Amino acid sequence: MLIRAFVPAHITAFFVPIIRDNPQDSGSLGAGINLEKGTNVFLNIEEGLERHIHVAFNGEPVKKEEAPITMHVANKIVPEDFVGEIEIWQYFDFPTGYGFGNSAGGALGSALVLGYKFGGTVLSLAKIAHEAEVVHKGGLGDVVAQLTGGIEIRIKEGGPGKAIVDNIINHEYKVLAIPIGELRTKEVLDDDVIRTIEKEGRISLQRLLQNPTPEVLMNEARRFAEATGLLSNDLLEIAREIDKVIFLPSSMIMLGKSIFALLRDEEEKKVKEVLKDLDLHYEICRVYWGKPLVERWIPNE
Amino acid sequence: MLIRAFVPAHITAFFVPIIRDNPQDSGSLGAGINLEKGTNVFLNIEEGLERHIHVAFNGEPVKKEEAPITMHVANKIVPEDFVGEIEIWQYFDFPTGYGFGNSAGGALGSALVLGYKFGGTVLSLAKIAHEAEVVHKGGLGDVVAQLTGGIEIRIKEGGPGKAIVDNIINHEYKVLAIPIGELRTKEVLDDDVIRTIEKEGRISLQRLLQNPTPEVLMNEARRFAEATGLLSNDLLEIAREIDKVIFLPSSMIMLGKSIFALLRDEEEKKVKEVLKDLDLHYEICRVYWGKPLVERWIPNE
Repeated sequence: MLIRAFVPAHITAFFVPIIRDNPQDSGSLGAGINLEKGTNVFLNIEEGLERHIHVAFNGEPVKKEEAPITMHVANKIVPEDFVGEIEIWQYFDFPTGYGFGNSAGGALGSALVLGYKFGGTVLSLAKIAHEAEVVHKGGLGDVVAQLTGGIEIRIKEGGPGKAIVDNIINHEYKVLAIPIGELRTKEVLDDDVIRTIEKEGRISLQRLLQNPTPEVLMNEARRFAEATGLLSNDLLEIAREIDKVIFLPSSMIMLGKSIFALLRDEEEKKVKEVLKDLDLHYEICRVYWGKPLVERWIPNE
Repeated sequence: MLIRAFVPAHITAFFVPIIRDNPQDSGSLGAGINLEKGTNVFLNIEEGLERHIHVAFNGEPVKKEEAPITMHVANKIVPEDFVGEIEIWQYFDFPTGYGFGNSAGGALGSALVLGYKFGGTVLSLAKIAHEAEVVHKGGLGDVVAQLTGGIEIRIKEGGPGKAIVDNIINHEYKVLAIPIGELRTKEVLDDDVIRTIEKEGRISLQRLLQNPTPEVLMNEARRFAEATGLLSNDLLEIAREIDKVIFLPSSMIMLGKSIFALLRDEEEKKVKEVLKDLDLHYEICRVYWGKPLVERWIPNE
């Protein structure tokens, strides 16, 4: 029997990192968007004489050291006395390291499929995924954001059950996502830029809470990206080209070398032409409004 | 333009009521199930020279006094200086007063459609719905449960953003719901039985948290219903007939004169035969896993 979980890709518009001793007290404030594409995780269990946990990314088996977050999750959920071969297959719709919350998607998706098999509530499983993310510096706010879905505002930091995550009502916008390159979360979060991020992130959050609309979200996303100096010139050039044909400003995905924008139906055609001219690969997808899924997976159904 | 919201019906398995001065501190502990059927609310706005709010239940316009919860919600969200005719149409898949969370569905659905038009985040809108429910004694835990979806456990009481609501992973069960008669929440919550409810509800919650599975949920639901004396003889007789052909015990919906059970696919046929013999109207539906929906509604799409 295969178990499948789906966790949406999560892109961050702006954020305030909050790191404390206890991972469940750590997290982020900020805002972001969950997408209908993301991470699919499949669990397959085979009989065996020992306890083995195997992880594969996009169909390719990886070593334990290459999957520390997933191994952290699995070791906490799979009972110590379990004997058999556990296979965790993670498939990502977006490239890893580009700001789409793949590590959190893999962590939360793995926690959910393992919980389906070995037990646990959604919050208790998500806490383990959040802990793995914080400890191994995968991200701070992705798990609680993905757990909530929609266009989200993290108004109180922390792990699942502690964070408070609100939603903006989405007025029929689609999301344009342009993955351009990798940016290591770890490096930026260790850098001096952190103080500017904290200051500008709090300003953006306050403004969005005063007027919680997709319009203010995108205005603040762009302001934050420029004010923190995170938006590099090459990305800014692309953003400006896109801005010529859409109403709301585009911005940078935090933290990846990627661009995102909210699109109205009538803007889709024009923006596709611009992206064709720029020769950029992109995705246009709907906002994923719900919670992550976990279910028995029946192929060809 | 019509705006539509869907809020799942919510049935409670067991509960502990917690009433405090501040409605946002009031709520309930306990567990319940959100269903794929429930409440649909449509908002239509027409021009007019004055500020009027009209409410209709299942297509029938009702007086303001008959819709105090919806009016409470509307008066908090519709700006005071708004001029025009606001029509709130609420359609219920289950009968009102039978324990399916219709009042909370109407409150939350109305808050969401009005928020789509006039602004507000999901939590801020849901807080208004929760307040209306608590103040007018519609219910205590339905709004936060419906906001979460799934098979839910309320582990901390309060309004939206304050309550902590967890989920059990649903292992492919469907829900059988048999609405039999009305039971006024207001009367039971004012009664002496409340102390027994509090005691037994806490025992059930503790046991479910120790072993959070659908099996324990149903065992505790039935134990709670019997231990509190809420399960009347006529309902008990029906429950026993159903129990003959299904694996998990059926129980009473809190608080309505209604029965519910969790069904496996292979049990569906047998239980339908029993219900036909008993000449009872019933619904079999899936668990609604996600959050309530709110969207622009385009007929015939």
